[in-house]
Amino acid sequence: MLPFEKTEFLARIAKTQQRMAARGIDTLLAVDPANMNYLTGYDGWSFYTPQAVIVAERQAEPICITRGMDANGAKLTTFLDHSNIIGYPDHYVQSTERHPMDYIAEVLRQRRLDRGTIALEMDAYYFSPAGYEALKRHLPNVRFVDSGQLVNWVRAVKSPREIAYMNEAARIIEKTMQVAIDTIRPGVRQCDAAAAISAAYISGTAEFGGDYTAFVPMLPTGIGTSTPHLTWTDRRFVRGEATIMELAASRLHYHCPMARTVFLGKPPQKMTDTAKIVLEGTDAALEAAKPGATCEAVEAAWRAVIARHGIVKESRIGYSVGLNYPPDWGEHTMSLRPGDKTVLEPNMTFHVIPGIWMDDWGIEISECIHVTESGARRFTDFPRKLFVTE
Amino acid sequence: MLPFEKTEFLARIAKTQQRMAARGIDTLLAVDPANMNYLTGYDGWSFYTPQAVIVAERQAEPICITRGMDANGAKLTTFLDHSNIIGYPDHYVQSTERHPMDYIAEVLRQRRLDRGTIALEMDAYYFSPAGYEALKRHLPNVRFVDSGQLVNWVRAVKSPREIAYMNEAARIIEKTMQVAIDTIRPGVRQCDAAAAISAAYISGTAEFGGDYTAFVPMLPTGIGTSTPHLTWTDRRFVRGEATIMELAASRLHYHCPMARTVFLGKPPQKMTDTAKIVLEGTDAALEAAKPGATCEAVEAAWRAVIARHGIVKESRIGYSVGLNYPPDWGEHTMSLRPGDKTVLEPNMTFHVIPGIWMDDWGIEISECIHVTESGARRFTDFPRKLFVTE
Repeated sequence: MLPFEKTEFLARIAKTQQRMAARGIDTLLAVDPANMNYLTGYDGWSFYTPQAVIVAERQAEPICITRGMDANGAKLTTFLDHSNIIGYPDHYVQSTERHPMDYIAEVLRQRRLDRGTIALEMDAYYFSPAGYEALKRHLPNVRFVDSGQLVNWVRAVKSPREIAYMNEAARIIEKTMQVAIDTIRPGVRQCDAAAAISAAYISGTAEFGGDYTAFVPMLPTGIGTSTPHLTWTDRRFVRGEATIMELAASRLHYHCPMARTVFLGKPPQKMTDTAKIVLEGTDAALEAAKPGATCEAVEAAWRAVIARHGIVKESRIGYSVGLNYPPDWGEHTMSLRPGDKTVLEPNMTFHVIPGIWMDDWGIEISECIHVTESGARRFTDFPRKLFVTE
Repeated sequence: MLPFEKTEFLARIAKTQQRMAARGIDTLLAVDPANMNYLTGYDGWSFYTPQAVIVAERQAEPICITRGMDANGAKLTTFLDHSNIIGYPDHYVQSTERHPMDYIAEVLRQRRLDRGTIALEMDAYYFSPAGYEALKRHLPNVRFVDSGQLVNWVRAVKSPREIAYMNEAARIIEKTMQVAIDTIRPGVRQCDAAAAISAAYISGTAEFGGDYTAFVPMLPTGIGTSTPHLTWTDRRFVRGEATIMELAASRLHYHCPMARTVFLGKPPQKMTDTAKIVLEGTDAALEAAKPGATCEAVEAAWRAVIARHGIVKESRIGYSVGLNYPPDWGEHTMSLRPGDKTVLEPNMTFHVIPGIWMDDWGIEISECIHVTESGARRFTDFPRKLFVTE
């Protein structure tokens, strides 16, 4: 049932341990669900209760700790020996007296990992200040440091198998975006479009199925397009308004996102003009996205184009993308923006999404790219333009 | 566009402020997306970057702080005066140099709230240790305390309008569960069933639409039923195996969950026997769920039944449910388990879900209930049994 060979998991763990050693880290607690999955295969919607994968310097196999009822899930989805899968009792869950991190600290003690330097994912989802305080309270002899997205950075460069999954996600999102554009019509309820879109990306293709995505479909419409993260209501789409469709497909949690904008009727001149500039700027960014270039250089190529047209955009135009769980398909490592001096390498993958949000309208047209030796390869083959439905 | 009258929001804020005053709290930072929505109406999939609603003791209106691009979303979805909606610059996002909580601390300073006692949601999703450390660093004169789910507790007793939304969600989940049972057949891909289920609860009914739910459909099948939180793959359902369907519908983020189990073929005796015991135990729990009873008394009624049949279950059999965002539709207040001495009140709402997970099989049959003056009212009218598809 594992989506990767065990050797691939072991290589990921070895890379993690190398980076740990370089930073003097003895033990790392991965709590980000994507990092847990990446290191062990663990897959389940159980991240709503605290859990962790523990990577220690000299241990080939990590330890996976979940809520008791989820331990069977870890047995089914990871390559781990069952002695390295530990479930905590249910009275730790949402209790005012106990915290699951109390239990996790006790496991660290039992495994003689309650010493030296332990790296924590200080800014990960699903790791709370209460959990952090519990660890500190129980492990007074440990020096805690911030992992600084250590495992996320290992994830930044994809393997051939990971790229293959993202290619499969690309096939699904092409199909899904077409469903979205075909469904959004004046008089159609937004929820019915969201239903059709969700069914499309979850069903996948005849060859392979889709998974849940780290965002639900973003479908801001009308004045809602002035902001990117509105979802849907049961009101109807209206002629004379734009709708932004920021969607993704996910294949075994590997994402290929895509944003397009559709206008129902004749779009105003400012929107068609802006779409042209966005496309020209994106082309420039894609042209710049070569191994050896920095993230900020990719953004600068975009910025040079839009500056010529008098457009200013403060927010980043893209980010590293791949394996993820809700609430974000971005990897929290690289951002395409001034100041990010990370150098692009082959098999990095980005969602280039230069969204424009004005006072009462907006536009998003994006491209998901694979950095190859010869430059940016587009994951999808789908028209990149402002869609207009008369 | 607001789903509640402004007076209802103001009443929620007043109740929150009363509880704050009783505990000597001057200012409260709500970061839980459900609490932010509850207090202001704010609605957007923007919780993947830090944000907060600030309730201060003597201010009628809270302050809502989001990422800059989401501030327009707050203008569209909250009742707040625009002077109380603040967006932070994008270079705070996923930066190694700055944290959005740096900015939020600065807002507290500007509003003269950088003093006294500030309550933080220490165990909320989307509040990280890094964010906590940033607040402590910037606000040295503040005494921080754990809010202890203060706002979640205000949410525990629902208003008539909230109950009405949960009733609407109940109509949607009845339809959705029927789709699930009709779709799951030998040879059907799990992802195709998940697609049909998702489309059903998002589309809703002809009268009102559905929303995204705080969990995606849980669909463990075969040996996967030994654990509750597996989702779906693109493998096919198999004759001779059970599938657990733990689903919900959401109406404006108000949930009505429902779990059922379907067996394809003739179920083994142990499963039909266990189903009968679960149903009998659930009936006993529902009978006990009256105003004045404690949470643990409701569980004890269940426990007395299953003990007679020699079944032991360690984990809780239910929890408070209602308004929520991913990753959990539970409210993190009451649990139906030993030790929870909370007294039930009219208009509390629970998901009673006594799941049984054995070594290689399991069963879930649940009921979402509304505590009324005269006892537990079922939200849904749907057969509660082990479904068998020949």
